[in-house]
Amino acid sequence: MNEPRDGRRRVVIDRVLPSVEGGAAPIKRVAGDRVDVEAHVFTDGHDGLTVRLLSRPLGEDEWAVTPMTLRWNDEWLGTFTVQKPGLHEYTVEAWVDHYLTWARDLEKRAEAGQELDIEFAIGAGLLKDAARRASGSDREALRAGIKTIEAPGSDSGRVAVATDPDLVAVASAYPERSLRLRHEPPLTVIVDPPLAGFSAWYEMFPRSASTEPGRHGTFRDVEARLPYVAEMGFDVLYLPPIHPVGSTKRKGPNNRTVAMPDDTGSPWAIGDASGGHKAIHPLLGTLADFRRLVAAARDHGLAIALDIAFQCSPDHPYVKTHPDWFKMRPDGSVQYAENPPKRYEDIYPFNFETADWRALWDELKSVFDYWIAQGVTVFRVDNPHTKPFRFWEWCIGEVKREHPETIFLAEAFTRPKIMSRLARLGFTQSYTYFTWRTEKSELEEYLEELSQSEMVEFFRPNFWPNTPDILTEQLHTGSRPTFLTRFLLAATLSPNYGIYGPPFELLEHIPREPGSEEYRDSEKYEIRYWDLDRPESLAPFIGHVNRLRRANPAFSNLHSLRFHPVDNEQLLAYSKRDEESGNTLLIVVNLDAANPQAGWLTLDREALALEPGERFDVEDLLVGTRYTWGDERQYLRLDPDSIPAHIFRVDREGVAHA
Amino acid sequence: MNEPRDGRRRVVIDRVLPSVEGGAAPIKRVAGDRVDVEAHVFTDGHDGLTVRLLSRPLGEDEWAVTPMTLRWNDEWLGTFTVQKPGLHEYTVEAWVDHYLTWARDLEKRAEAGQELDIEFAIGAGLLKDAARRASGSDREALRAGIKTIEAPGSDSGRVAVATDPDLVAVASAYPERSLRLRHEPPLTVIVDPPLAGFSAWYEMFPRSASTEPGRHGTFRDVEARLPYVAEMGFDVLYLPPIHPVGSTKRKGPNNRTVAMPDDTGSPWAIGDASGGHKAIHPLLGTLADFRRLVAAARDHGLAIALDIAFQCSPDHPYVKTHPDWFKMRPDGSVQYAENPPKRYEDIYPFNFETADWRALWDELKSVFDYWIAQGVTVFRVDNPHTKPFRFWEWCIGEVKREHPETIFLAEAFTRPKIMSRLARLGFTQSYTYFTWRTEKSELEEYLEELSQSEMVEFFRPNFWPNTPDILTEQLHTGSRPTFLTRFLLAATLSPNYGIYGPPFELLEHIPREPGSEEYRDSEKYEIRYWDLDRPESLAPFIGHVNRLRRANPAFSNLHSLRFHPVDNEQLLAYSKRDEESGNTLLIVVNLDAANPQAGWLTLDREALALEPGERFDVEDLLVGTRYTWGDERQYLRLDPDSIPAHIFRVDREGVAHA
Repeated sequence: MNEPRDGRRRVVIDRVLPSVEGGAAPIKRVAGDRVDVEAHVFTDGHDGLTVRLLSRPLGEDEWAVTPMTLRWNDEWLGTFTVQKPGLHEYTVEAWVDHYLTWARDLEKRAEAGQELDIEFAIGAGLLKDAARRASGSDREALRAGIKTIEAPGSDSGRVAVATDPDLVAVASAYPERSLRLRHEPPLTVIVDPPLAGFSAWYEMFPRSASTEPGRHGTFRDVEARLPYVAEMGFDVLYLPPIHPVGSTKRKGPNNRTVAMPDDTGSPWAIGDASGGHKAIHPLLGTLADFRRLVAAARDHGLAIALDIAFQCSPDHPYVKTHPDWFKMRPDGSVQYAENPPKRYEDIYPFNFETADWRALWDELKSVFDYWIAQGVTVFRVDNPHTKPFRFWEWCIGEVKREHPETIFLAEAFTRPKIMSRLARLGFTQSYTYFTWRTEKSELEEYLEELSQSEMVEFFRPNFWPNTPDILTEQLHTGSRPTFLTRFLLAATLSPNYGIYGPPFELLEHIPREPGSEEYRDSEKYEIRYWDLDRPESLAPFIGHVNRLRRANPAFSNLHSLRFHPVDNEQLLAYSKRDEESGNTLLIVVNLDAANPQAGWLTLDREALALEPGERFDVEDLLVGTRYTWGDERQYLRLDPDSIPAHIFRVDREGVAHA
Repeated sequence: MNEPRDGRRRVVIDRVLPSVEGGAAPIKRVAGDRVDVEAHVFTDGHDGLTVRLLSRPLGEDEWAVTPMTLRWNDEWLGTFTVQKPGLHEYTVEAWVDHYLTWARDLEKRAEAGQELDIEFAIGAGLLKDAARRASGSDREALRAGIKTIEAPGSDSGRVAVATDPDLVAVASAYPERSLRLRHEPPLTVIVDPPLAGFSAWYEMFPRSASTEPGRHGTFRDVEARLPYVAEMGFDVLYLPPIHPVGSTKRKGPNNRTVAMPDDTGSPWAIGDASGGHKAIHPLLGTLADFRRLVAAARDHGLAIALDIAFQCSPDHPYVKTHPDWFKMRPDGSVQYAENPPKRYEDIYPFNFETADWRALWDELKSVFDYWIAQGVTVFRVDNPHTKPFRFWEWCIGEVKREHPETIFLAEAFTRPKIMSRLARLGFTQSYTYFTWRTEKSELEEYLEELSQSEMVEFFRPNFWPNTPDILTEQLHTGSRPTFLTRFLLAATLSPNYGIYGPPFELLEHIPREPGSEEYRDSEKYEIRYWDLDRPESLAPFIGHVNRLRRANPAFSNLHSLRFHPVDNEQLLAYSKRDEESGNTLLIVVNLDAANPQAGWLTLDREALALEPGERFDVEDLLVGTRYTWGDERQYLRLDPDSIPAHIFRVDREGVAHA
């Protein structure tokens, strides 16, 4: 029945936080992070407790132990730091601490002038129990305590010894084993490399990297582009699929269903007779060229990210070697992708309900293994929500078990519960709805959900103002202030963000047709040539902001994000703060690309860690001007024809700024 | 590893609500309640799903099955009704529904004029799979469908048959077994008797029930008091401990540490040589008298509730028969209760860390069993938070397994997490902080937590304006409007509430000393005589309000509680609604006992289930006046010298009122 093994175990660990789904999924951190743990622990009556936090890398035997302290209302706090990427576990253990209780009560009795002789006998008895369970110097310390407490002497002297914090700590450490309670099973934290928590991504099509119009770009061209990307301050260079492109049902420019002989097709129609997901498009170069690119990128501080799209062109070798991995139609043809009545005949999806699913899973995982062997650790996964969730949970789990340094970005712009599940089952970062959140109220609401709900523990947003699939209507005007604003919001709201260039920095903005989110002459279906030296390019500004991101640690977290009221619906104000360094930023963005906007900002001093009434300096890091502020309200005006934002660093007197 | 047994099972059940701690504790309902279940269910891609709700009394083999329907955003809804008190379980099962998907797509294809021959072959194949798994008339229906779909004929005729909802439903019911997913383990709901969800309690000391001053009251006196209590409309008559009272260290009037020979002591100092927790104080009567009282109360619609206080006077038989159930001090004496430096020498607490805990637990449970055998099913448990949580979990679990009709009220005015745990581990109802919540903002905040958070699923508040231990400072004035207001708030905010009478209805209000929450000449330590016929008695008003509670089903739930804005901090306005009957109440209370207060109320029409702009009638059930309202804002004025509240029933035209 519901009867416990030992009814004498009276302590209750009611809840341990942070946790995701009560521990079913790990929380996420990066190497070097602190994990602040809160446990709700209590017992019946008034007895004192000892509560400890245990943590260890998964698979190790020894727990690291740190004490937890009572805040209030039965909330106990403790902290551990995670270093090594991989899975770690943590839990809480607690026990009713009889000696601690007795020592605390003894002081109250002594103060009230009560007779203490029997009390000393009780305390000595508790120390003897502890001494029986202790050994070495602890045992010696306990015996010395017993001797003093039992010896005749002044009450005050014996109380002082009995309540000495060192003696109490030693006695507390040896409770009766069966009365200790540990929260089971332990919770888990997945520790990722720092790049997982703070990264700026640049997406580009290698085949458009050529310096001459009309020539198919190569990995060597991408290598030549590295200084440009690095100078803009990016951390990740993400390449759409680099594999051979199928020719059957190949798409022409602007997604035409018929391709001309010269048309290059979509890189997402993966595979031809020469190879599939582990092959390289012959016009891009060789495997050696690719490895050279990965190394050169690393020298520029850039990680190469590959696109993993688990789907095949009709010419993919799998179609011949593993026809059972696809759905067959009664006429013997392979089932192409479709969303009836729409058909995508250049793509064959895998049939994950195949009886041969085990082999299919192994083969797909081996695609990651293959590219990891070539030096790639960052993957952007195409449409993960159209493959089984259990497959991803297994696949990412296995890959990260062997390679905890890997990063998986889920390209899923789909229903919220599905995006949440992908993040919980293992994806490191996630695309978001930011792309379509343009109004102040919807930005505030969405960011509060991401930063202040349980999501902040497992969902790492990666904000993209544009992608090859999404040229939002807001960008169709080509207005420079709009591009600047969307970039600034992405780069300063979210620790992880990315742009699809060169179209973004070159203000590319013409849709295929009015109202469409497709680019006209999209690189998805044809090779483009880009003149990076155009004077209107945003590249220098992007570089400036990315350098500010790196110099100010407050940018690297999401949980400290707070919005500050401004009495103008076009002005969005928010702050971020890094607790350790004290680095504090206040950002104000004009959401109106067409008009100057002004208003009164009301400071949330608590969010900025300012004392009531304290005067302080702010420096606008975008332009270098400094002001001294002291009032609760500040008047601000932002003109879209200049820079449509402030990035203020808050400098408190006598407090170092990062 | 993390590899599933069958990787082809693609459906995901992400969450099932309502649940408490993810299913670790049961939700609470009463017999006859609907349980509305929400499940977050999805799969990869665009396939259709079948989702079903399963429920059954715990221990039965057969599940009752009801379909779930998609609301939006992957949220599926279903409902079941619980009848029998006891534990029930419920869960959700789901599968990717291939025929449903195919039929849905077929309609789109047909609309788009696509060639359908191969599609019919696919659909017929799916029906054949289902037919293999089906039997009886279902199999026949499937075979008939196959025949039509395969036969040459018009596309439109074949589409009509193939997509016929009856055929789709039959085909949907026979998925491949291994691809079905069930949420495990099932969630649980504890079903209590209706009294657990809606009850008005009256507490009184039987020894003060005498009709002559100076005589010790008896169960016969209590029997004579039943018409009075029933006329006030109460459901539960709760008696403080009825057991023999110890004489060692007995307390005198007003908690004096020395008792005179005639002093009666505290009923909570339980036990003397004649008996303990299963004995009856000889001056109250015999066991036969008690059983007679229980039966007579039942005839008046009243359940007798007993106080269960697991502690002993030094004279309790347990102290001799089970000295090992108590803590011994080194001098051989038994450890009395204390909270150093305070001592309560008339009470011996049990030592729940005794090696003999198993026998102690069994004996304490047998106390409940004993009184259940005498016809008692309602228990008010004294200070449960000073006994181990695991003991209560086991004890209440066992008692309710054998007697699901029992009700346990936790007398715990302690830290919030402890009160929450007691409710989750099995207590049916809980005392609350209502007693000290007097301001509008704190009432709103507290009630929103109780009614709108997860607490509403497991914590049934029981609101008390006073108890023998608590005469709040607000009541010290003896102001009739204050007593009326506190009573009205308790009775109309919470489905369960109680008063300690006759002190409450007789406006007893003098504290032992200024600022104390103890009554002067408290019944806890002496016998009192009460003149129930005093003209200022609130009894008639209490009776009126309790009759309104019974006549209006909206009073019986907490989850529908909503506060409505009033531009006056002394006027509190709130509504409740019963979905099934449509019964809707709007209550306005003047919190200021000294002054008339007026203000503008802004109606929350959604909470009242009113259309925008709809005109409607309200009837003030306290005085019988009717008004027609249509505006969003209503001017209200309440004078404490009259009745300090409105209880409006909202009567929509053409809608029956309860």
